[in-house]
Amino acid sequence: MTEKAFQDYYPDNFSHCYGCGRLNKDGMQLKSYWDGAETVCHFQPRANQTGGFPGMGYGGLIASLIDCHGTATASAAKYRAEGREMGSNPPLRFVTASLKIDFLAPTPLDQVLEVRGKITEIKGRKVIVAATLSAGETLCAKGEVIAVLIPENYMAEK
Amino acid sequence: MTEKAFQDYYPDNFSHCYGCGRLNKDGMQLKSYWDGAETVCHFQPRANQTGGFPGMGYGGLIASLIDCHGTATASAAKYRAEGREMGSNPPLRFVTASLKIDFLAPTPLDQVLEVRGKITEIKGRKVIVAATLSAGETLCAKGEVIAVLIPENYMAEK
Repeated sequence: MTEKAFQDYYPDNFSHCYGCGRLNKDGMQLKSYWDGAETVCHFQPRANQTGGFPGMGYGGLIASLIDCHGTATASAAKYRAEGREMGSNPPLRFVTASLKIDFLAPTPLDQVLEVRGKITEIKGRKVIVAATLSAGETLCAKGEVIAVLIPENYMAEK
Repeated sequence: MTEKAFQDYYPDNFSHCYGCGRLNKDGMQLKSYWDGAETVCHFQPRANQTGGFPGMGYGGLIASLIDCHGTATASAAKYRAEGREMGSNPPLRFVTASLKIDFLAPTPLDQVLEVRGKITEIKGRKVIVAATLSAGETLCAKGEVIAVLIPENYMAEK
């Protein structure tokens, strides 16, 4: 795949997130892409990301997948809504104001997980993303991310 | 501290959670305790658990702290409500059905974080816990965990 992921456009000094920063060498380095009007991210969990159930993923993993894919989706959606090229300045980087997850089925660790995002609302500095997390045909979790654009002057100062 | 944490009473085969399992050697091994009618957990973040903001924690870390402390609080609250000793059989181990987090301020990585839990409701197999996450005087996040008791026969089979 030669296409750049949403996260590959984040400014360097905002690219150290353990979930999705390309510059966090220990992190999960999630990669999100457009798939039509939706967004998609695939991730192979690590064997030690176990949850309470043997062989299943822990809540923080699932939360991170939905959270990081949600803020990435918000960034891409905002660029698209403004008719701008991904990564053009000023950068559109989002943080999470609110995260809601419903855990519907245990999330296996032994296969690639798929996270999908749908843009529910874009209004001012806020983007709301609805997300699903699936393992094959099994819907493991549903979530909602309310993402807020980081002020331009804050990013410039860092 | 010689007092055992809630997580130290979990059955061995349900003690591999990356967030709170005492048998996950790579994990965070969170420890939760009673503090009167509330519960408390302290955790020193790791330097690589960075979020989008430089020097601040990532969403999955914050979610995991609230999630794991929430299910531990649910377990302890259920034992207490039934007048039973922690760890007595059958084990009372909970999973998360729903998790909601409001991120109120960036969470620093350079100090010990405090997670507190309050039991909002105990009804049948369900326990609802309201949680806060603070760094010193700063309230960084608020959350709600809806936890559900794992069926006894499921635990016995594993």
